[in-house]
Amino acid sequence: MTRAVVVGAGMTRFGKHLGAAIGPLGAVAAAAALESAGLGVRDVQAATCGNVLGGMLPGQRILREFGVSDIPVTNVENACASGGTALHLAVRMVESGEYDVVLAMGAEILSALGSGLLPQDADDVEVLQGINLPASYALRAQRYMHEHKLTAEQLALIPVKSHENGALNPYAQFSQPWTVEDVVNAKMIADPLTLYMCCPNSDGAAAVIVCSEAIARRYTSVPVYVRASELVSGHFHPVRDLTAPETTITARDQAYAAAGVGPEDLDMIECHDPFAVAELLYYEVFGLAAQGEGIGLLTSGATKIGGRIPVNPSGGLLARGHPLGATGIAQIAEAYWQLRGEAGGRQITNHRVALTHVTGGGISGYDNGSCTVHVLTT
Amino acid sequence: MTRAVVVGAGMTRFGKHLGAAIGPLGAVAAAAALESAGLGVRDVQAATCGNVLGGMLPGQRILREFGVSDIPVTNVENACASGGTALHLAVRMVESGEYDVVLAMGAEILSALGSGLLPQDADDVEVLQGINLPASYALRAQRYMHEHKLTAEQLALIPVKSHENGALNPYAQFSQPWTVEDVVNAKMIADPLTLYMCCPNSDGAAAVIVCSEAIARRYTSVPVYVRASELVSGHFHPVRDLTAPETTITARDQAYAAAGVGPEDLDMIECHDPFAVAELLYYEVFGLAAQGEGIGLLTSGATKIGGRIPVNPSGGLLARGHPLGATGIAQIAEAYWQLRGEAGGRQITNHRVALTHVTGGGISGYDNGSCTVHVLTT
Repeated sequence: MTRAVVVGAGMTRFGKHLGAAIGPLGAVAAAAALESAGLGVRDVQAATCGNVLGGMLPGQRILREFGVSDIPVTNVENACASGGTALHLAVRMVESGEYDVVLAMGAEILSALGSGLLPQDADDVEVLQGINLPASYALRAQRYMHEHKLTAEQLALIPVKSHENGALNPYAQFSQPWTVEDVVNAKMIADPLTLYMCCPNSDGAAAVIVCSEAIARRYTSVPVYVRASELVSGHFHPVRDLTAPETTITARDQAYAAAGVGPEDLDMIECHDPFAVAELLYYEVFGLAAQGEGIGLLTSGATKIGGRIPVNPSGGLLARGHPLGATGIAQIAEAYWQLRGEAGGRQITNHRVALTHVTGGGISGYDNGSCTVHVLTT
Repeated sequence: MTRAVVVGAGMTRFGKHLGAAIGPLGAVAAAAALESAGLGVRDVQAATCGNVLGGMLPGQRILREFGVSDIPVTNVENACASGGTALHLAVRMVESGEYDVVLAMGAEILSALGSGLLPQDADDVEVLQGINLPASYALRAQRYMHEHKLTAEQLALIPVKSHENGALNPYAQFSQPWTVEDVVNAKMIADPLTLYMCCPNSDGAAAVIVCSEAIARRYTSVPVYVRASELVSGHFHPVRDLTAPETTITARDQAYAAAGVGPEDLDMIECHDPFAVAELLYYEVFGLAAQGEGIGLLTSGATKIGGRIPVNPSGGLLARGHPLGATGIAQIAEAYWQLRGEAGGRQITNHRVALTHVTGGGISGYDNGSCTVHVLTT
């Protein structure tokens, strides 16, 4: 099997791009990715695009901006894991030997939908009864806080760290650090989650170039290898434990096995943190801390940028923002820059192995839609 | 490379399923496909789903109806070629050796959107100026009729044939044959296209089982081999010739080369006929007739069910209906049944080689979104 390698990355700033169309916005990210790899758009043999709510043919509308003809484009949708799925598909297209150079993109424009909740599917009985996305994470937070005796002030430490990181990231939606007081005193959305414990609705796009190992050295002297690319969909049984995200657990097991690594090998994680409790749950799932000990890991400073295992150095979904289909690709861009030592003011210290993780959906109230986990190394 | 084989197929009737949700509707098709292959849902290792306008996670919502857990699901969108793209992806997943059994699905519920035009993207300048889908095909029809001296009555012979076939297909939206007079006297939609020259907005779902050659004989004594699975996206230059659909021409060349067949080898075609002129154009693209001679081929009876090379024996998009994401998979189901001699009252005579074709999109007025062509044989 050919190994897939990332040789370029680009993105727009995440935030409000009012009035933007998906084609031109996505093209900014794609052009930056191509330029960073020294590739022309004619070198691209196939493309994938993650998008959830953008209508027909988002990938083609992006490529039209370049006048690209004829290459196969596959638009994928897997809720918040759409970008991760676009990368997964691009990786498999290269690994199978069918293509040597694939452009993996993600783009989303949520500001066109107005503010507030994302549209969810009306045939989901639990959504109809009020278990929208903030509510489903609020239940997890309540349970976790009950089990492990956490206060709202402790929960607030997560967005505080995220915004500290985001303030160092020129691509992040938010550029100001927040205090614990700011977070706990913000408007309550779904108890215990205040507004600042929820990710924003964002616009943005990201793109990476995936190529075969055989030709990667043409484009870069510091290739970033894809060691694991796992796509898992969800469990459809009654939730057993609100603090154990089963889909991510399955994807974690597959990814660690495929890459031949464990938590002790990781130098950074970009994980899916749409609401403040999530990062603590994923510390524990990925083996950085034992169950209930996530908060201790956070307060120890280990997951800060200067710490032993930085988590969401980009600012994550809470501070970089969350344009659904773009997020999974932006995580790969962040890992690419960090592993190559190109992350500027937010550069982590040790940077050999990175893990990225998005999980989406939540049919019937839990994260049973789709999950992707990627492991990358220099 | 492992060869991909179709070993089962199922679909719902296409038409109006008022108030239906995509999960239960899709599950009817998936259950029928599984049953036809003698497979349990636990045998499925991965799934793909083509859908355009159905919101988040259509594939997961279908599988939830079975309580399926953990398998990777990839939802794909490529406008009217979404179902063909779902099949293409499933084929590549098997050919690469990653999975042995993949469920390829397509589902769409258009009745929820009301009647009339499909939503198109507001950032397309030509759509904003009126080149919606019926208008873009009307221009092609006008040009073709001008070039080749066709009358409206001759154009009407296409839906007359389609509805003759559809009346024999229990899965078709329309079950009555129409006369030339019915067609030309129907309400004008976009001159020269009357209502009966336009495909309906449909609800429906279809599913097929794709497995590796090594295990196909476990499930069937009449495997249907996928000899070519080509996905091509469009050209983004000004249209040179309204009667030469370039994306399909590229996909045709790739498919004939991959399968090692030419037009003389085909026993049937299911092609993309959303508006009456399209079938004539595709007769010519696929080499059944020289340019301008499509109408002669039609009136000769060669493309009828009893003819030399039946086209759209199912009734096609005009009579079977067109639930966008489901159509490409329904074509494969039709080819599967025809090649196995299981097509009942619409069974064709010779049935060794079938070609299926969907093309979608139309950014800036022409079929430059995506196109898939598949060649299947017993």
